[in-house]
Amino acid sequence: MSSEDGLTVTERTRLRRLREYGSHRRADLDAVLGAGFLCHLGVLVDGSPRVIPTGYGVDGDTLYLHGSVAARSLREAPQTEVCVTVTHLDGLVLARSVFEHSFGYRSAMVYGIPRLVTDPEEKLHGLRVLTGNCAPGQWDYARRPSRKELAATSLLALELTEASVKISDGPPDDGDSPDAALGLWAGTVPITTVYGRPLADPVLPPGIEPPEHIAALEGRTPGA
Amino acid sequence: MSSEDGLTVTERTRLRRLREYGSHRRADLDAVLGAGFLCHLGVLVDGSPRVIPTGYGVDGDTLYLHGSVAARSLREAPQTEVCVTVTHLDGLVLARSVFEHSFGYRSAMVYGIPRLVTDPEEKLHGLRVLTGNCAPGQWDYARRPSRKELAATSLLALELTEASVKISDGPPDDGDSPDAALGLWAGTVPITTVYGRPLADPVLPPGIEPPEHIAALEGRTPGA
Repeated sequence: MSSEDGLTVTERTRLRRLREYGSHRRADLDAVLGAGFLCHLGVLVDGSPRVIPTGYGVDGDTLYLHGSVAARSLREAPQTEVCVTVTHLDGLVLARSVFEHSFGYRSAMVYGIPRLVTDPEEKLHGLRVLTGNCAPGQWDYARRPSRKELAATSLLALELTEASVKISDGPPDDGDSPDAALGLWAGTVPITTVYGRPLADPVLPPGIEPPEHIAALEGRTPGA
Repeated sequence: MSSEDGLTVTERTRLRRLREYGSHRRADLDAVLGAGFLCHLGVLVDGSPRVIPTGYGVDGDTLYLHGSVAARSLREAPQTEVCVTVTHLDGLVLARSVFEHSFGYRSAMVYGIPRLVTDPEEKLHGLRVLTGNCAPGQWDYARRPSRKELAATSLLALELTEASVKISDGPPDDGDSPDAALGLWAGTVPITTVYGRPLADPVLPPGIEPPEHIAALEGRTPGA
């Protein structure tokens, strides 16, 4: 193992492909994690992998994530590793050849043995971090969890020690290959994700407008 | 195990949570898979789960997906199950209480033992299906894979037999709870994903315009 700027480089986080920009820099990891709030959590359940979409939030070196299935699998096999993957799809990379087609993306994979958060104070803190990332401003606006609700929530904590980041954002790389002579169009098609206009709950009494932190989301990109 | 409209219901695909709409209907699975092209593939590597973002395409009862890491793990442990998860994030569900916050989403999980596609004819067919889903029109427009490129591509096939679908698309469900009296705004904030304007490769000679199937993507939602 070698280390570079805070993240441990192991066999599985070593980056193999050259056409992508791979990184073990903590700043790149923070950038990818900070640009979203939905991850795909891989856990072992009865010996087979299960991939669960769930929300997350980062506080310093700790990734907090929701997960009842994961919590259950963790209780059954406490020392089992998980993999948390966060992917931002940025576009299609359309090359001259089918073979060189790919996606523009930023992704991070975090590995480790998660900890089930049981201390009520840390749980409240972790949920605050998670809510702040998934729904900014709502922790201060909405009713906070009761003791009973807190007990009914499964929160996991994963330390940001073993991780890798991959970023692919260039044009197709067959522009200097013999295929360039084919005269075909090649380039990228960006993909963007944006918030739309807030839609009130149909049973909301008239006269209650969305607060500023919600109204301000419209037209913005999550995490931007 | 029981079966409903084509998909096998097992302990892990049985749907537990009531506030979401769960389904084992094949039509719902097809709808979720048909609305995207990026999945998260969970495989076992050295006994731990790894979650890899990759492209996919569906042909009848077969899900084809790219995956060199998965192919490697499959060679090492041929009878190991994988989990393929496809998630479409449709919005934030902002409730009166933090506890009732959630996401609007559509997701599918497909389980099974994948098959490494080695027959060149099926490989070509599978890649055509995959390309047709990820980059419609490009199979007929771009240069198709050579024999050598085909050999360098790892393609997996997974049968659509064991799967579950979850859809969450309503307003927050605390509109009839005591929290409704708090007078807080509650509702949803939609999240949409759209293609932007095609961006030519900087080394593309002038005068080559994007073909109609690429130009037509702008403003559209992937899979819509």
